[in-house]
Amino acid sequence: MARSYPHPDPGEVELFQVLAALSDPVRLEMVRTLASRDAVNSLDLGPHLAKSTVTHHTRILREAGLTCTRPEGRACWISLRRDLLDVRFPGLLAVILASATPA
Amino acid sequence: MARSYPHPDPGEVELFQVLAALSDPVRLEMVRTLASRDAVNSLDLGPHLAKSTVTHHTRILREAGLTCTRPEGRACWISLRRDLLDVRFPGLLAVILASATPA
Repeated sequence: MARSYPHPDPGEVELFQVLAALSDPVRLEMVRTLASRDAVNSLDLGPHLAKSTVTHHTRILREAGLTCTRPEGRACWISLRRDLLDVRFPGLLAVILASATPA
Repeated sequence: MARSYPHPDPGEVELFQVLAALSDPVRLEMVRTLASRDAVNSLDLGPHLAKSTVTHHTRILREAGLTCTRPEGRACWISLRRDLLDVRFPGLLAVILASATPA
């Protein structure tokens, strides 16, 4: 049976939760990586991190509504929910990415 | 002796700490109130909150670099550090205020 991961509906996504998800340097860097790609293998989001740490951070991003997690075999592909973010919080992603210092 | 409150220098203000400070509905609402005024008596930032709760939240905002706290007698006047925020994180405050749902 395929794994599935719950994603909040657009109307459930709250600004303060999105900001909380982004209030961590590791997750900010993950979002920066995701912003330049369509989808990223979750392990490539934290090549120097333990798998459990990557899972922890990608879960917070997903539950906040920032990302979509799509399982494929033993891998998970992560992508930004750009359409949702652009509608709910216009300009937020661009401003935060522009402000974030590269790691 | 006058009370004094430490404020981070502009170069010490980190994006993830600013986002963490904003990742709480009470503090988001405080920043919304501050955005429309020059300075606000701290007690007016949380008229329905315990004074210790207001102090807790205004401290987090100040330590993150979002606000300036100026004591005057027994009162504290709080103001946004707009110049700092506009230079360090251009557009961030405007985007977040536009995205925040009024309480």
